[in-house]
Amino acid sequence: MNRIITLTTDFGLTDGFVGTMKGVILGINPNATIVDITHDIAPQNIEQGAFLFANAAKYFPANVIHVVVVDPGVGSARRAIAAREDETLFVAPDNGVLSSVLRPSSSVVQLNKPAYWLPRVSNTFHGRDVFAPVAAHLSLGVPLEALGDPIDNWVRLPRAPGLRAGDEIAGRVIHIDRFGNIITNAGEEMLSGMDRAWLVVRIGGRVLRGVESTYADAARGELVALISSSWHLEVAMRDGNAAEALGVRIGDEMVVGLDRE
Amino acid sequence: MNRIITLTTDFGLTDGFVGTMKGVILGINPNATIVDITHDIAPQNIEQGAFLFANAAKYFPANVIHVVVVDPGVGSARRAIAAREDETLFVAPDNGVLSSVLRPSSSVVQLNKPAYWLPRVSNTFHGRDVFAPVAAHLSLGVPLEALGDPIDNWVRLPRAPGLRAGDEIAGRVIHIDRFGNIITNAGEEMLSGMDRAWLVVRIGGRVLRGVESTYADAARGELVALISSSWHLEVAMRDGNAAEALGVRIGDEMVVGLDRE
Amino acid sequence: MNRIITLTTDFGLTDGFVGTMKGVILGINPNATIVDITHDIAPQNIEQGAFLFANAAKYFPANVIHVVVVDPGVGSARRAIAAREDETLFVAPDNGVLSSVLRPSSSVVQLNKPAYWLPRVSNTFHGRDVFAPVAAHLSLGVPLEALGDPIDNWVRLPRAPGLRAGDEIAGRVIHIDRFGNIITNAGEEMLSGMDRAWLVVRIGGRVLRGVESTYADAARGELVALISSSWHLEVAMRDGNAAEALGVRIGDEMVVGLDRE
Repeated sequence: MNRIITLTTDFGLTDGFVGTMKGVILGINPNATIVDITHDIAPQNIEQGAFLFANAAKYFPANVIHVVVVDPGVGSARRAIAAREDETLFVAPDNGVLSSVLRPSSSVVQLNKPAYWLPRVSNTFHGRDVFAPVAAHLSLGVPLEALGDPIDNWVRLPRAPGLRAGDEIAGRVIHIDRFGNIITNAGEEMLSGMDRAWLVVRIGGRVLRGVESTYADAARGELVALISSSWHLEVAMRDGNAAEALGVRIGDEMVVGLDRE
Repeated sequence: MNRIITLTTDFGLTDGFVGTMKGVILGINPNATIVDITHDIAPQNIEQGAFLFANAAKYFPANVIHVVVVDPGVGSARRAIAAREDETLFVAPDNGVLSSVLRPSSSVVQLNKPAYWLPRVSNTFHGRDVFAPVAAHLSLGVPLEALGDPIDNWVRLPRAPGLRAGDEIAGRVIHIDRFGNIITNAGEEMLSGMDRAWLVVRIGGRVLRGVESTYADAARGELVALISSSWHLEVAMRDGNAAEALGVRIGDEMVVGLDRE
Repeated sequence: MNRIITLTTDFGLTDGFVGTMKGVILGINPNATIVDITHDIAPQNIEQGAFLFANAAKYFPANVIHVVVVDPGVGSARRAIAAREDETLFVAPDNGVLSSVLRPSSSVVQLNKPAYWLPRVSNTFHGRDVFAPVAAHLSLGVPLEALGDPIDNWVRLPRAPGLRAGDEIAGRVIHIDRFGNIITNAGEEMLSGMDRAWLVVRIGGRVLRGVESTYADAARGELVALISSSWHLEVAMRDGNAAEALGVRIGDEMVVGLDRE
């Protein structure tokens, strides 16, 4: 069956790990369509993996199988899971990397049926030996329930959205993209009811007045606050790199307030 | 329909932007075959995007749909376009990135029919919200003319080929590839009628005698001028990195002359 | 025909070389399924290419066509070859990059039938002009023997496995992966008959006691010796980068001994 399987990992593209996973999948289901989301999650950074994966996943069709392997605990007692939420299937280590896409009502099983893995399982590369073959079997129609026993105590990452109190939002930087755009944990909905023209964004020792609608609202080389494509408050520099210019890093604080003067 | 859609962007592969575009395309046409040309165009470098895209595009079959997103003006008043040249379709911002592949006779429309975009369009990621869905609809057979109104004043980049005057060519460096090979804007045809053995190439303070036919005409670690795979005058170092050795950068000058002494 | 063609090169992903090869393949066989193994082989590093390719290749289905282009001799008198080993086909320059996958009994031909190449062959990019079209023709069912004349003196790389003498193994570092894990040329089978708990691994001026089974056998930030996913002796640092911590590079020595005290 021609099912779509997506791959998100921290494996990078240099060592051939991702190509190897594709070989395993195509060996089990030659008709799978494999799509890379990203393989450049910072090594073992579960939070970043969860964030970038969730951003991309919501733009895929519903009947997709997502494989997410950021797995610092590979070979340890950490569990591996597969899950279903609506029509979408997920395969991942049980470390919270699926936190943003699973719900309390999702069906989750612990992968404990070696019949659906490669015959020889290494202790360092379950992407190849467990997660890829499990996804391939799902793509052939194997039911989730055949892959392992149901669990409901799967790992959730603590959610850490920005906090709004009155007309003030306390947030932090959760991602810096290739262009140096600074993405914060303040979702667009947090700005509701506030007049964007009077908002003041404090970050990296700088004060930006107004949340604009597009990069082009700033002059070249100027900083601008706006809403990111992931629908978060973002700070960018037109035709430049805001994170470098501000010396801002992931985890740094950002504060939004109202100033009508 | 199983149409080929290629992607060329400056999005990099880290943030999942490219994977997201693929999700959008496959959501509209699950049978599209998506091929990456490159996603490592230097951020917002339209000239480099135009050059690398055109080099690759001429090796694809005719009935392909090319999506090229190097888009510093995203969210501004810059137009978005789709175009047809012979059987080949193109989707891109109207900023000149298609300059090398469109002709005066090409059919070009301005994308102004939101029915073919995602329902919600961000101001920072038209690759996902406009260009990907438009390409997917084209791959399903939607005619170019349905996507927007025809225009003929689309943006052309100023062409900047090398200049030949008599037996001298004045050029500059337009690309440095992964191997450190230096590609110039002197097309092979500019050498016509000149005896390659007597040509003298001046670049980065060095003088190379003769335009050779292959890397192997030089000893290890030696510089060699030859014709690149894109059919331009190239300066390389056998088993080494010419750009590093010469301290040459994009935009630097190169001069070719004849010297029979 | 829907055959799988894999690509392994040192071309990187920036210049569009890989995308161009895919265009050539799909122009000849629009139904080929193309899979990237890696394109980040260190420029012109045949040994690394041979190692990473062989690790991945063994996880692909048997009836695959593998294209491996690490080709410092492109344009020289070096031969190009295609080969068959069991049901698997290979296309590569004849420089030893296939050493780990071909056997004395493999069928190997020298590519000398330009009818299966692009009409115009550059001297610097046979990946595009020779190897990609040859692979595409193979995927359409062209027999290996049509592509050129059989040879049996194809190039083998000298094999350099670790050496075991009694209870001591003398090895060296052959790969460092994205996570900083250090892979050595001591295959797992070399440890046979030795009690892993008593093994002592000397590398980078450090002494590790015991070969463990998984990363989790070490505390965070601690070094651990174990068996890699390629089934070699590996030295890793839990939640860290062993190669950086030890200042170890490819080619460095490693010694394994037994110490029961």
